[in-house]
Amino acid sequence: KLLLLRQQDCIVPMLSQVLCNLSQSQVSTRSMASKTPVGFIGLGNMGSPMAKNLLRNGYPVIATDVFPESCKGLLDLGAQVVDSPAEVAEKADRIITMLPSSPNVIDVYTGPNGILKKVKKGTLLIDSSTIDPSVSKEMAVAAEKMGAVFMDAPVSGGVGAASMAKLTFMVGGVEEEYNAAQELLTCMGANVVYCGQVGSGQAAKICNNMLLAIGMIGTAETMNLGIRLGLDPKLLAKILNMSSGRCWSSDTYNPVPGVMEGVPSANNYQGGFGATLMAKDLGLAQNTATNTKTPIPLGSLAHQIYRVMCSRGYANKDFSSVFQFLREEE
Amino acid sequence: KLLLLRQQDCIVPMLSQVLCNLSQSQVSTRSMASKTPVGFIGLGNMGSPMAKNLLRNGYPVIATDVFPESCKGLLDLGAQVVDSPAEVAEKADRIITMLPSSPNVIDVYTGPNGILKKVKKGTLLIDSSTIDPSVSKEMAVAAEKMGAVFMDAPVSGGVGAASMAKLTFMVGGVEEEYNAAQELLTCMGANVVYCGQVGSGQAAKICNNMLLAIGMIGTAETMNLGIRLGLDPKLLAKILNMSSGRCWSSDTYNPVPGVMEGVPSANNYQGGFGATLMAKDLGLAQNTATNTKTPIPLGSLAHQIYRVMCSRGYANKDFSSVFQFLREEE
Amino acid sequence: KLLLLRQQDCIVPMLSQVLCNLSQSQVSTRSMASKTPVGFIGLGNMGSPMAKNLLRNGYPVIATDVFPESCKGLLDLGAQVVDSPAEVAEKADRIITMLPSSPNVIDVYTGPNGILKKVKKGTLLIDSSTIDPSVSKEMAVAAEKMGAVFMDAPVSGGVGAASMAKLTFMVGGVEEEYNAAQELLTCMGANVVYCGQVGSGQAAKICNNMLLAIGMIGTAETMNLGIRLGLDPKLLAKILNMSSGRCWSSDTYNPVPGVMEGVPSANNYQGGFGATLMAKDLGLAQNTATNTKTPIPLGSLAHQIYRVMCSRGYANKDFSSVFQFLREEE
Amino acid sequence: KLLLLRQQDCIVPMLSQVLCNLSQSQVSTRSMASKTPVGFIGLGNMGSPMAKNLLRNGYPVIATDVFPESCKGLLDLGAQVVDSPAEVAEKADRIITMLPSSPNVIDVYTGPNGILKKVKKGTLLIDSSTIDPSVSKEMAVAAEKMGAVFMDAPVSGGVGAASMAKLTFMVGGVEEEYNAAQELLTCMGANVVYCGQVGSGQAAKICNNMLLAIGMIGTAETMNLGIRLGLDPKLLAKILNMSSGRCWSSDTYNPVPGVMEGVPSANNYQGGFGATLMAKDLGLAQNTATNTKTPIPLGSLAHQIYRVMCSRGYANKDFSSVFQFLREEE
Repeated sequence: KLLLLRQQDCIVPMLSQVLCNLSQSQVSTRSMASKTPVGFIGLGNMGSPMAKNLLRNGYPVIATDVFPESCKGLLDLGAQVVDSPAEVAEKADRIITMLPSSPNVIDVYTGPNGILKKVKKGTLLIDSSTIDPSVSKEMAVAAEKMGAVFMDAPVSGGVGAASMAKLTFMVGGVEEEYNAAQELLTCMGANVVYCGQVGSGQAAKICNNMLLAIGMIGTAETMNLGIRLGLDPKLLAKILNMSSGRCWSSDTYNPVPGVMEGVPSANNYQGGFGATLMAKDLGLAQNTATNTKTPIPLGSLAHQIYRVMCSRGYANKDFSSVFQFLREEE
Repeated sequence: KLLLLRQQDCIVPMLSQVLCNLSQSQVSTRSMASKTPVGFIGLGNMGSPMAKNLLRNGYPVIATDVFPESCKGLLDLGAQVVDSPAEVAEKADRIITMLPSSPNVIDVYTGPNGILKKVKKGTLLIDSSTIDPSVSKEMAVAAEKMGAVFMDAPVSGGVGAASMAKLTFMVGGVEEEYNAAQELLTCMGANVVYCGQVGSGQAAKICNNMLLAIGMIGTAETMNLGIRLGLDPKLLAKILNMSSGRCWSSDTYNPVPGVMEGVPSANNYQGGFGATLMAKDLGLAQNTATNTKTPIPLGSLAHQIYRVMCSRGYANKDFSSVFQFLREEE
Repeated sequence: KLLLLRQQDCIVPMLSQVLCNLSQSQVSTRSMASKTPVGFIGLGNMGSPMAKNLLRNGYPVIATDVFPESCKGLLDLGAQVVDSPAEVAEKADRIITMLPSSPNVIDVYTGPNGILKKVKKGTLLIDSSTIDPSVSKEMAVAAEKMGAVFMDAPVSGGVGAASMAKLTFMVGGVEEEYNAAQELLTCMGANVVYCGQVGSGQAAKICNNMLLAIGMIGTAETMNLGIRLGLDPKLLAKILNMSSGRCWSSDTYNPVPGVMEGVPSANNYQGGFGATLMAKDLGLAQNTATNTKTPIPLGSLAHQIYRVMCSRGYANKDFSSVFQFLREEE
Repeated sequence: KLLLLRQQDCIVPMLSQVLCNLSQSQVSTRSMASKTPVGFIGLGNMGSPMAKNLLRNGYPVIATDVFPESCKGLLDLGAQVVDSPAEVAEKADRIITMLPSSPNVIDVYTGPNGILKKVKKGTLLIDSSTIDPSVSKEMAVAAEKMGAVFMDAPVSGGVGAASMAKLTFMVGGVEEEYNAAQELLTCMGANVVYCGQVGSGQAAKICNNMLLAIGMIGTAETMNLGIRLGLDPKLLAKILNMSSGRCWSSDTYNPVPGVMEGVPSANNYQGGFGATLMAKDLGLAQNTATNTKTPIPLGSLAHQIYRVMCSRGYANKDFSSVFQFLREEE
């Protein structure tokens, strides 16, 4: 239900292990003949469990990654591994990409061994990377020239959600192709939201995460101030949550140790959504705001705060550790 | 249920008119003998309806205000009007004050004709003004020297909520006196929350409104950025509200015209909670943060933004008009 | 001596008129045969007077612009006007470009009729546009593939300085080619500074203008605060300028009307360096900072402030009008 | 010449030692009879050398401090030490105070053993503490009621400047008394500037230090960004200093190690003006801005940055260590 889920929830690996075992047998007994192959490019922490969920749902998968060893797990589950995005494009007419950043996306689509070198007319290309919406638009134009269709479909939810097929997809692209995309995305996620023209998925994700960062830092500042003024943290959280200060960071993911259970602040800010990842998403928000000449004073300051945190040892802690960062050192 | 209610909701005046007529007859039929008088100092937009609600509940009221004409409405309802806070203190052993700012509170309590000049031992003093928590503490010390008890009980909710006895009170002070305070406060409000030692009521209110301001500006920036990126405002609000960007300003008081009905953004930012009032509360947050050496980077920037808005013609618009302020001028 | 000069100083047009008349005769009497032609692409407000100064110094000019009418003035002075950057590249082995932004530079160099389509081996390409340093680096790589040399040489100083050949050039590129570049740049500017590898000229300019923006807003805030506290503006400026608060914005370009003469603040913020241009340069600073993961909290906030000013009617006022923006409206 | 001097310059202690030895003999040989005694209250790191300079100039000194042991050095040099500010006021008709913060000033002037309890009509009271200008004004009003004259005269320059009588005094108060104040202040400082009505000295100091903080953080961000973009730090500093980015922090007190000698950045940020002291002054700027409803977006953010630095281990480093704070940790 919430876009941002904990990546290292201790329950998730066990469940995904179960699902994994289950799926291995399922995969072998299901007839793949009835479903045409799906290409998958980018088998990192997120891409790998996503591709596995396609296999589990009976789709033959043609996979590739710049690091061939990343494909091993998929190979064992019956996927076909090939050498390049171009080769994937020769063999599949639906392709999903899950890559770290804009330059990777540009290379995988338009590079010398890229998808568009060999793409077949009518191919559906779905990019689940989180990148600049303007790059999504460029890719869509390039794909259209080759007679293919490009959609952006970035995800919310971490590795745990990817394993459990509980991701949320925010989808941008021509509406007529949305059903075809949805068929595949529902194998990997619990929510699929259509956001509008190409790039809209990225825009929605960037917007959500910017407001999330602002709410989190604001909650951290507010809780810290209240504590300094003598308020009990649990009582303050309760008051905020019944009042107009209420937000997701105060009522669902409170950054103050001791206020809630089962959140990173209860676990020394381990797991969750790292400050580095938040800084990356805020960098995208910043870029799109600069390019569209949109003022984002708080978003911009939030970006700078996570940037400084990354320089001061908080890079791999959950982004709610901003509470710790702002607090007086002992 | 929410701390911040709309001041000029069109339903409120009618209802309060009904209550008013009702209460006039009630007042005359109820026996006041069973309840001892309550002093009320400060009969402005908020204090006046609050004092009326005490009358409606059968409490004789001894009132005063620096502007004697403010007392007229109360006089008509049967209150006794006297000349000074000192005189109120002679005649009542429970006194409520509702004043604009710290200097007024200091004057009304400790000035030459102030309450403490004539206060009786054991008197309960309840200050519902929104002021610096350190001033509340000073007043409590001064009151204690005279054998009286001082509590802070700032309110959330505007004139409408005051008329309908729907205010929320956040109460600070010695716990043993809380019941006595609650008896009176429930006549004027729907929620009464005990926050801890004296000053805690102010602290809770300041904290809530700081986070509210951050959430509102953040929502305005985010919605504006999304719109510039081509997203439909209603769709974006829906996505945020099912996701981790969700906050009171996005789901209950959205600042973008056309997204919600019955909020100031649907009414050209008329009514609601003015940018000046938000700037005042952020000034209190800033002062308490500075005095306690607490970093509040976003809170501080939110303060500056409302400060600039007040200088640029937004002083009397609802604080959600920050969306309009950040938008490209047409 | 100072990088930022006034664009519309009333003296400048007259002087440049004199120079203009003078140069027309000079141009005709000087032998152009001894100097090989210089290409010039981009004949806007800045490029046009720059190209004229090359003519005045005896260099034949081969010019082009997307708006052919922009070339008329140069044509009258004896320049040859051609149809495309590619054609310029066929006819000149030293080419200067002066364009509004990164996409224009990319198009002029690498587009279908771009310089690199026809560039001769060994050609020296000097780009005086203010753009993202990473784009300068890309152009350098692309040029090198064709056997040409690319240098970035953004300018400080406005239209007046361009007319009077008083620009400052900040030059990035391989050091061995610096002398060749300097020969041309000294015809158009008073200062030429070598900054290092390609992109360094852009980096230096972006850095200077970011600190300039911070100093200007800081000076405006400080002067405004001092005035509110009862200080005389001239006295305050004097105190700052003999103290550690001193900066270029306080001692050379004070933003408070009445403190200095001959600056935009003395002329209702007409002329000078527009808020839009400052917002553009801060956008470049923001992008480079984001891309290099460098925290710039004040630079980022300065960017947002100029962004909001552009939305609120200050786009074309000198950037020192931030003083007016922050002041209480009358 | 500069308001902010280094406190722990290694040369200063030696020189002040020399001066000290010198003055001890001087003190004994000069006739004190010709000068009436001067009171001095507050003999900390700054007050002590200031009072010694009065003795050196032949003024008998009547001193007191809440920590009597602080007076020992002065006692040895011939000062008379008494028990309370009130006692000082009985014995001197010119009194200087040098105290840490507003509450101390309020206590020393208006407390039960305060100056104003025993002050003689016509006494000149000079407060060199750095405090809120509104407290200076309150003290002036209180002094006037007793027939005395109060002036504020905060200093710039640290312990070294105090020892060498090189302080700068910024003086606020009635102009007719300025000459009398100047006579004493010139014994302790090199520059005495009259700023206007009472409180103006504080206002000028607060304004200068706010702009200083903004310039310093801005310089640190800019230098860091330039270095990340590949510029040589010395070259970048040179370019800024010949350009519009120039400020005291870039040309006199550069925060980047290796750019300048003899500044704290060359000495691991030891000595100089600690981040805590800057945070204190920015807190005063913040308070006066909030109280006068003046927007100070960059000043406010600068305040928050020094606040966070104080929480993260930079409290006692020179304020130029913000460069280190913003840099990537190794």
